[in-house]
Amino acid sequence: MPHRSDIGRLSPREIRYLIRSGTWDAPTPGLAMGYAQANVVILPARYAFDFFLFCQRNPKPCPVLEVLEPGRFEMDSFASGADIRTDVPRYHVFRRGRLEDTRKDIRGIWQDDFVTFFLGCSFTFEEALLRARIPVRHIEEGTNVPMYITAIPCRDGGIFHGPLIVTMRPIPEDKVAKAVQITSRYPFVHGAPVHIGSPEKIGIADLSRPDFGDAVKVRQGEIPVFWACGVTPQAAVLNAKPDICITHTPGHMFISDILNEELATF
Amino acid sequence: MPHRSDIGRLSPREIRYLIRSGTWDAPTPGLAMGYAQANVVILPARYAFDFFLFCQRNPKPCPVLEVLEPGRFEMDSFASGADIRTDVPRYHVFRRGRLEDTRKDIRGIWQDDFVTFFLGCSFTFEEALLRARIPVRHIEEGTNVPMYITAIPCRDGGIFHGPLIVTMRPIPEDKVAKAVQITSRYPFVHGAPVHIGSPEKIGIADLSRPDFGDAVKVRQGEIPVFWACGVTPQAAVLNAKPDICITHTPGHMFISDILNEELATF
Repeated sequence: MPHRSDIGRLSPREIRYLIRSGTWDAPTPGLAMGYAQANVVILPARYAFDFFLFCQRNPKPCPVLEVLEPGRFEMDSFASGADIRTDVPRYHVFRRGRLEDTRKDIRGIWQDDFVTFFLGCSFTFEEALLRARIPVRHIEEGTNVPMYITAIPCRDGGIFHGPLIVTMRPIPEDKVAKAVQITSRYPFVHGAPVHIGSPEKIGIADLSRPDFGDAVKVRQGEIPVFWACGVTPQAAVLNAKPDICITHTPGHMFISDILNEELATF
Repeated sequence: MPHRSDIGRLSPREIRYLIRSGTWDAPTPGLAMGYAQANVVILPARYAFDFFLFCQRNPKPCPVLEVLEPGRFEMDSFASGADIRTDVPRYHVFRRGRLEDTRKDIRGIWQDDFVTFFLGCSFTFEEALLRARIPVRHIEEGTNVPMYITAIPCRDGGIFHGPLIVTMRPIPEDKVAKAVQITSRYPFVHGAPVHIGSPEKIGIADLSRPDFGDAVKVRQGEIPVFWACGVTPQAAVLNAKPDICITHTPGHMFISDILNEELATF
């Protein structure tokens, strides 16, 4: 596998080719900087309307970037020449809500009724925060972002239901307003924070014990700021226990041809 | 029927009750100011995923505010106590793409598989333009907004396809930037203009001959500014010729409990 720094300047299409050929099967942060990476959820068509509805009703955790028609695995403007069956580094296969398999290719289990959803990912706004010299602690510490299950329920969408899951980034008090402004520009990648300040107000008992990812240090003078997280729809899918569902594995995202700035509001 | 000025201060719920009881069956502009009014499209469930996809891929003309599950006609937070079968002043019933009937109530033809889509409407941003002293010509002239079929195709979504349809408002040159800023705050009600300046560049031959609505005067020193229009999804539905489709009639919108400001970005 090439070193991350060797492929940092490749285009999304070139990186997708490395992924497809099996040359790259590691996490995707830092690759194709400036381009939007996406969460992937693949479901049989009979669940697709309900899942679409769940996303529509919970746009902060589930910002839909693109959806493919039943059976369709190739894309045009969203990711030129891409194939969703091969172009994600690693896939999780869930059956009836249980993780059954991790794969590098899903051509062997592809079904003609599969509908693919691409949802925005916080990498987009983290890049914008860093450009404005707002620290992103888990990147500084080289760990995965801490994620917490909140006491805030999502709105149900058909069979899909579950709690809002959030990420946390500690922000210096004098930069919280700026962090809100910057992330507000990206409504399609989770947008503005859902809570600022008190973890206990949203049902988080202990910041040092995240439900997923790794704890990060909150320093003196920093405020914990919470954003809606793309794990929320995955959890809702697990609750609904569809016969089959395929997702990317955490951190192993789909890299689109959409520029982060194309997703920004003014 | 009460005079418009007599009911101007009623709440959305109170106005919906007047509509349901048959007391009000006229256009809804100017009612429940401050609250979002919505375009309505009702389709059998077998078409719902495709229509959802069409809206997702064309968010400027088709900004989805809410969707109801198959068969559901009552709402909660979107419009407390509302019933979509009775709470629109007038409905159009289309069969295989042809207008067949205009009704004040659709309880008699309601189907258990009907899915209701509510799409944002430009009344929201017109109110914001007026608050900033930006003239809205068709309101000044007391006519319907001029609408034009453009040469810009929408992205297809399943069986749904068609051209982008736009509205036009002439804006004084020194207020065009402000008009862009204001409408950019409302991405769920068509948002920023899709074109500024040259009608012929988007396939409009003659501003004085709109395809729908009424022509308005463009004065010296004004620039024609074009916004995506909520008639776009209706035209796509007519092209697709579903067995049945029910919409509001033009200007006779559904009045929600959502504040326009709740739909605004920062």
